[in-house]
Amino acid sequence: MTETERALATDELRFDERGLIPAVVQEAGTGEVLMVAWMNGEALERTLRDGRTWFWSRSRRELWAKGETSGNVQHVEEVRADCDGDVLLVRVHQVGVACHTGQRTCFHRELAR
Amino acid sequence: MTETERALATDELRFDERGLIPAVVQEAGTGEVLMVAWMNGEALERTLRDGRTWFWSRSRRELWAKGETSGNVQHVEEVRADCDGDVLLVRVHQVGVACHTGQRTCFHRELAR
Repeated sequence: MTETERALATDELRFDERGLIPAVVQEAGTGEVLMVAWMNGEALERTLRDGRTWFWSRSRRELWAKGETSGNVQHVEEVRADCDGDVLLVRVHQVGVACHTGQRTCFHRELAR
Repeated sequence: MTETERALATDELRFDERGLIPAVVQEAGTGEVLMVAWMNGEALERTLRDGRTWFWSRSRRELWAKGETSGNVQHVEEVRADCDGDVLLVRVHQVGVACHTGQRTCFHRELAR
């Protein structure tokens, strides 16, 4: 492993002024981008501990476990950070669908040109 | 195309209180997530017009064209939006590397557990 590829410690991450960091969730098997949500330190800690994704809801101002009610949990394969340490990439195995609309991914709509 | 899959108009997007929206950039060929950066309305407009990615630099407070100096441009295949309309997924063909460190992707570091 080269110097630039060493693992990043969680205390090297840069959370924003609200104490949040965006997390891109990707299906590890297919590479499909499933969703983007926000984590605070506690959500990240629980995600690493439980091996399932936790996020911070900015609207409800509370922690939530993905799939807690729907059963559509995300089993974490690995968590990566970008070069600036201010974005996370969470590679998961998605059970069922990721989107609350019932679609496999939240990115099911193309933008009109 | 089903109702939920209709194309989203750019004026249906939800930019944040700073007028910004996060854009996840993915290599269309391999599915690799390359980087996450921010767009304002002008950056998005230029991206759709030029077929190459433009972003808003929060630190420099200016528009920047990806690859303008390095030559590592991103040719846009499609732009998708998530179910809430507050995140973009830009699927591109990356010339060279995406990361300023010389790595193919900005997400080259795993997070230590």
